[in-house]
Amino acid sequence: MNLHQLMRDLRENNGSKIVLVVADGLGGLPIEFGGKTELETARTPNLDAMVREGVCGLSIPVLPGIAPGSGPGHLGLFGYDPLEYKIGRGILEALGINFQVGPRDVAVRGNFCTVNDKGLITDRRAGRPANERCVEMCKKMQTIRIPPSPPVLRGRGAGGEGVDMPEAPPLTPNPSPPSTGARGEVEVFVEPVREHRFVVVFRGDNLGDQVNDTDPQALGVAPLFAVGEDANSQNTAKAINHFIVEACKLLKNDAPTNMVTLRGFARYPKIATMQDIYGLKSACIAVYPMYKGLARLVGMDILEGAATLAEQVDTLKKVWDRYDFFFLHYKYTDSTGEDGNFDGKVAKIEALDMEIPRIRAMNPDVVIVTGDHSTPSKLKAHSWHPVPTVLCAKTARPDGVVEFGEASCLRGGLGQVEAKYLMSLAMAHAGRLAKYGA
Amino acid sequence: MNLHQLMRDLRENNGSKIVLVVADGLGGLPIEFGGKTELETARTPNLDAMVREGVCGLSIPVLPGIAPGSGPGHLGLFGYDPLEYKIGRGILEALGINFQVGPRDVAVRGNFCTVNDKGLITDRRAGRPANERCVEMCKKMQTIRIPPSPPVLRGRGAGGEGVDMPEAPPLTPNPSPPSTGARGEVEVFVEPVREHRFVVVFRGDNLGDQVNDTDPQALGVAPLFAVGEDANSQNTAKAINHFIVEACKLLKNDAPTNMVTLRGFARYPKIATMQDIYGLKSACIAVYPMYKGLARLVGMDILEGAATLAEQVDTLKKVWDRYDFFFLHYKYTDSTGEDGNFDGKVAKIEALDMEIPRIRAMNPDVVIVTGDHSTPSKLKAHSWHPVPTVLCAKTARPDGVVEFGEASCLRGGLGQVEAKYLMSLAMAHAGRLAKYGA
Repeated sequence: MNLHQLMRDLRENNGSKIVLVVADGLGGLPIEFGGKTELETARTPNLDAMVREGVCGLSIPVLPGIAPGSGPGHLGLFGYDPLEYKIGRGILEALGINFQVGPRDVAVRGNFCTVNDKGLITDRRAGRPANERCVEMCKKMQTIRIPPSPPVLRGRGAGGEGVDMPEAPPLTPNPSPPSTGARGEVEVFVEPVREHRFVVVFRGDNLGDQVNDTDPQALGVAPLFAVGEDANSQNTAKAINHFIVEACKLLKNDAPTNMVTLRGFARYPKIATMQDIYGLKSACIAVYPMYKGLARLVGMDILEGAATLAEQVDTLKKVWDRYDFFFLHYKYTDSTGEDGNFDGKVAKIEALDMEIPRIRAMNPDVVIVTGDHSTPSKLKAHSWHPVPTVLCAKTARPDGVVEFGEASCLRGGLGQVEAKYLMSLAMAHAGRLAKYGA
Repeated sequence: MNLHQLMRDLRENNGSKIVLVVADGLGGLPIEFGGKTELETARTPNLDAMVREGVCGLSIPVLPGIAPGSGPGHLGLFGYDPLEYKIGRGILEALGINFQVGPRDVAVRGNFCTVNDKGLITDRRAGRPANERCVEMCKKMQTIRIPPSPPVLRGRGAGGEGVDMPEAPPLTPNPSPPSTGARGEVEVFVEPVREHRFVVVFRGDNLGDQVNDTDPQALGVAPLFAVGEDANSQNTAKAINHFIVEACKLLKNDAPTNMVTLRGFARYPKIATMQDIYGLKSACIAVYPMYKGLARLVGMDILEGAATLAEQVDTLKKVWDRYDFFFLHYKYTDSTGEDGNFDGKVAKIEALDMEIPRIRAMNPDVVIVTGDHSTPSKLKAHSWHPVPTVLCAKTARPDGVVEFGEASCLRGGLGQVEAKYLMSLAMAHAGRLAKYGA
């Protein structure tokens, strides 16, 4: 019996409403020994009121000691075990630029790099080109078409020696028999991210993602060719290698952005939707593409248009009657943390606190405020530290905690709980779960 | 390595004694914001003394957010993962009336219903007959015998149309070849529960329980016939359909109790005994049949005769030398909670507290007081809230908690612990577990 099946078996629809507010990277650390964290420093009367009325605790994003990226961090909060449900880097990069990946897609992160006249990499980031150049080079690559039956590539293949690719194509790196599944067309999409970064999406039938990175992660060697580990991945590898050869031709006079490497090939993951698991009609109210993309993965409707938290709450109010579950994403607690801006993070937490009353005024049956991970400004990075979490509902059991902070939440009634259980707790407090067993 | 195998590998018999007191539905909620729970309201000097001398915490019956029935609630306390060990409704109903189900049994919950002259259901509960009528009708059905080779039933089968059953037997609903396993006799037992409810047990070799409910859960349609999903379940289905046809004949002039539906077919679960897992000779001292039945499932001896908690403690004293492990079940903390009777639950907790000294006077090596789940009188139902738990033993590490209550137990040394680990903790504190690994 897994958790999702349990939810399917026990769920009931009573029309109640759940709001999940994710303050990205909420948890923090004191800068100096004896000091307070960002959250403990911030003046948060409205979050403190939630803590007094509700139940608090600390959410463990994945497992003790594991700092998650945005993907696993959010999947956990949506109730998907982040160690079971994995989202590849290519898909996350595509989600991050709001590219609507689908079930026939294999996405990958691309880097412009510089190669010398022997085809050996001299700069893995092509001197970090301006964004405009990234866009211009991507436009060139957008002309590439994958022929229905990609030509077999020949050359000296992967490894340390230089390969003058278009003139002397590499040997087929994998002698396996051709897959019979790749008869159809493969479409290719190239989209800029910024500087040396872009996304490539290969779309077609029977495309696998068990393909090596073409980035050798070293200087003085040539980019690698793609090798597929199974028949479907060999289909993808053929398309990839064709793409690389064409890109190399198109860019050869564009040094320093005269070559590309690709890494993190990833298929669109097969994930049951929140509707399917919890029976919740769910909406995402986010500003940044990455979080919309993650919400789309689990089947939420993406409500566009809000550019600030106040506008997100406006949207919430507008669609209140149309959904059961609302995911509000607040980015700035993470970005200030990543910048090492302690005071800035304090200010962003206070700005979040100001919007809490408007959310609670809609009388949600359950409101949770938490984060997908900690981002202590002291570390300027995501961390593994458990995340302060508060849940408000009429069925919350008092725990005596009176303010929202890392140390105070240690005494909360939720204890330290894996993020993946927050949804089952939300369902229970919303009156949406029947008794298990007679 | 699973928990039970670990217990088997590490267990030692040192003659120590463990008492598990289960106050059913112990945990609660305040009625009003700012108030206290039932347990926090109750005057419990003896339980408070246990908390001061022992270690306390909160037990999570299944997983965060999951409210269990009595079956999974108790299996967890006995150390059986309630998501792994499942007990079907039919078996639980049989246990609840003290029917001693065994390994050759398939049990099912029966309902009397009313059908019109076309055989269509007009009242799914037959007007909730008096208990006396339930007994009388069950007596009629106790005359039914299943022939060694049940006749093939023919008719229009399951679904919306009426079936005048005895006169026009339904078509065989499943065209699979007959099972070769059903050569032996099938015995059938019919026992009243109350009102429209009764229990049927089919006993024989090779009887499966993958059989649909015959209750269509709707009015204006006929009861369904049973279909078995596999060969053994087809054996059961044949016996069931014979039973239904005979019952229909016997009851046809007894409107409104002129037909039956059956739901929740369940085999007796195969569960290793407490003796096998922990090496504990175990006794159950309970008043209500359901809890005796659950204890019998895990191989405990059932000690009959006690009708009150005081008598249960008398029994405990009487058999003290004969067992290693004692399960005392106290029902009234749950029944008052289910009734929404806050003050009544407080009183029942205080009554439990009064008996604690007599239990401790026997010098058990380990005493645990906990519940199988919470039953807040505010909710009048089982809930998912973690259950206050105290463990007393010479090896308990002090945690500074001085009273037994939901909020105070949050600061206890057991933390929030899944119920299934309480038995390994009991074994450890009883000195009955060797070191794991060299």
